[in-house]
Amino acid sequence: MPELAPTLAVIGGGQLARMMAQPAIALGLPLRLLAEAPGVSAAQVIPDHRVGDHRDLATLREVTAGCPVVTFDHEHVPTEHLHALEADGIAVRPGPDALVHAQDKGVMRERLAALGVDCPRNAIVTGPADVEAFGLPCVLKTTRGGYDGKGVWFVEDTAGWAEACAEAFAVAEETGVRILAEERVDFRRELSALVVRAPSGQAAAYPVVASTQRDGICHEVVAPAPDLDPDLATHAQQVALRIAGELGVTGVLAVELFETTDGRVLVNELAMRPHNTGHWTQDGAVTSQFENHLRAVMDLPLGSPAPRARWTVMVNILGGPDPEVGRLWDGYPHAMARDPQLRVHLYGKEPRPGRKVGHVNAYGEDLEDCLERARHAAAWFRGDLGNESE
Amino acid sequence: MPELAPTLAVIGGGQLARMMAQPAIALGLPLRLLAEAPGVSAAQVIPDHRVGDHRDLATLREVTAGCPVVTFDHEHVPTEHLHALEADGIAVRPGPDALVHAQDKGVMRERLAALGVDCPRNAIVTGPADVEAFGLPCVLKTTRGGYDGKGVWFVEDTAGWAEACAEAFAVAEETGVRILAEERVDFRRELSALVVRAPSGQAAAYPVVASTQRDGICHEVVAPAPDLDPDLATHAQQVALRIAGELGVTGVLAVELFETTDGRVLVNELAMRPHNTGHWTQDGAVTSQFENHLRAVMDLPLGSPAPRARWTVMVNILGGPDPEVGRLWDGYPHAMARDPQLRVHLYGKEPRPGRKVGHVNAYGEDLEDCLERARHAAAWFRGDLGNESE
Repeated sequence: MPELAPTLAVIGGGQLARMMAQPAIALGLPLRLLAEAPGVSAAQVIPDHRVGDHRDLATLREVTAGCPVVTFDHEHVPTEHLHALEADGIAVRPGPDALVHAQDKGVMRERLAALGVDCPRNAIVTGPADVEAFGLPCVLKTTRGGYDGKGVWFVEDTAGWAEACAEAFAVAEETGVRILAEERVDFRRELSALVVRAPSGQAAAYPVVASTQRDGICHEVVAPAPDLDPDLATHAQQVALRIAGELGVTGVLAVELFETTDGRVLVNELAMRPHNTGHWTQDGAVTSQFENHLRAVMDLPLGSPAPRARWTVMVNILGGPDPEVGRLWDGYPHAMARDPQLRVHLYGKEPRPGRKVGHVNAYGEDLEDCLERARHAAAWFRGDLGNESE
Repeated sequence: MPELAPTLAVIGGGQLARMMAQPAIALGLPLRLLAEAPGVSAAQVIPDHRVGDHRDLATLREVTAGCPVVTFDHEHVPTEHLHALEADGIAVRPGPDALVHAQDKGVMRERLAALGVDCPRNAIVTGPADVEAFGLPCVLKTTRGGYDGKGVWFVEDTAGWAEACAEAFAVAEETGVRILAEERVDFRRELSALVVRAPSGQAAAYPVVASTQRDGICHEVVAPAPDLDPDLATHAQQVALRIAGELGVTGVLAVELFETTDGRVLVNELAMRPHNTGHWTQDGAVTSQFENHLRAVMDLPLGSPAPRARWTVMVNILGGPDPEVGRLWDGYPHAMARDPQLRVHLYGKEPRPGRKVGHVNAYGEDLEDCLERARHAAAWFRGDLGNESE
């Protein structure tokens, strides 16, 4: 085969890499994947893959050999390895100096403070006395390694606070990460401002969405966020674009925000990869976040982030409470017959309880209708219709 | 890995199988591919593939082992092998008794005549005397094996008619196929009525589109066909649905039609697989023809065939006249910057002159704008802007 296009290396074989494969097929962009185990989500659909450890530099070098660019399914590749790959002449996108802000919440908070971006009040704490001085209630977070509700402790102003605190510092002791204390924000809801930035600085901002978490896991997204003040929406997009620019992000930047009860937005988290709050774009936007991530890291002009429908609702499919419920596949006859407009995205993962195994998108003119359709379908796949309503 | 879903076997590694891979990823449907050579279009994107000859029954049995269903990228698998696979207990979709009507134009014409479906006047001819008796001008076609303008001769009522005729009968002699003579239809334009049918008989009809051929190759499709009489559009859909039902088609059936200058539709060709005249559905319909083909052959409820935009225009990208033009990839910066709404689909094929190597879709409210955008992009990739206008 003659080389028709450069090959993009992707580190990490989860569902985000899997969903990059779809636009890569259309773009004629070959992907080369490093998967953490045989048969993981993305390895099922990307022929050119090998299995290995993303913490091993030799493995990273082997996978990226001959690839002009490397990008990521997750944020867990050590910073020093990213610098080594850059020194080898590979374009690392997003680069280590940007990515560290998504890897380390302490670094992120310091940098956002320096930029004057509104964040929850926060401080690095080294022991229970610091936490008491910071003030209760508060949230303790490991600065590195947490995701989907892991590495987060809600410390209440009650008798049990010292135990929660002790647990956090035990993890810190064990793993060597720092602990960040943050105020409990009195928020109306969570928002997400997702932008994509190319190496040139060209950038595209998707509509700001509202997201609902359950047990620390993204559960539902509504695009655009209903009844959001237009000035606040524009401000959130500007904040996300400014962070992307100041940090030199290449690819998707998802800025998760608290909308406070007094009408401000505070930055909660940053992610520098396609993000759960952008899955609605697969069916609801002209260009999906996955395609625009590929276009950005390959230094191509970005596609339009404009919505294609008045409303798009995404609901995650989690593994249900009953492991006997069986294959998600068996949910198709009802779900598809009930809603011929429903868009289903499965990840090729075994549905263990609480595990993200897919999502559904429903779009249309009527928000209530979209919510009902997406929630019903996700609950149906979970085998748990009793929990359907919000 | 536990088995999360049944595996679908796909015979043929061209771009149609490649484009089935995208919805298969979303549906969580594993594909197993038989490719005709290493590195062909679909083999680049489907991990579970082997290389072999689709005319060899042992190879077909090996590829389909453990798969409950087999479907096709093309119509070239011998009928007797399809019967053998059925006898093995595999669901062959579309089945051999349906597929023969897309494989053999003689059988197709006889069956459509029996059904009372309007077709161009036609007859099997065995020599020049038959052709002269049929009447000139006419079209001669091999009943089997022709595609993209191959196996077709336009016989004019001029001195040279005997030579064209001799060539056709030489091919017939050599290959053992029959020759079909058809009248030259005085047509206004070509239409295509694409439907999808599940084993249950559930069926979905896409809007009727107008297609333009160049040198016997589909060049441009406009969905829906502009200024088409609504009654004639409904009639065309009904004809396609009736043929799908009478022939017992499972999956996509594309019925290519002539719209005559006196306001009738005549059936030109049948195809029983995703079809070039349905590529617009990838970006222009709620459910693409590729996803609905998968849903149909896997006996799942079909998705909505409704359009998502007022107009969608598809233009094929052919390899350009200048083999030095280089990689299509190099056309991206201009094409994407000029039109952030453009949807590009490349097939991973080397752009040899005249070869279908991709297509673009442009959708929107204004037909002229869609036409201009899609034609410009396709011509740009071809390296041939001088030929851009119609």
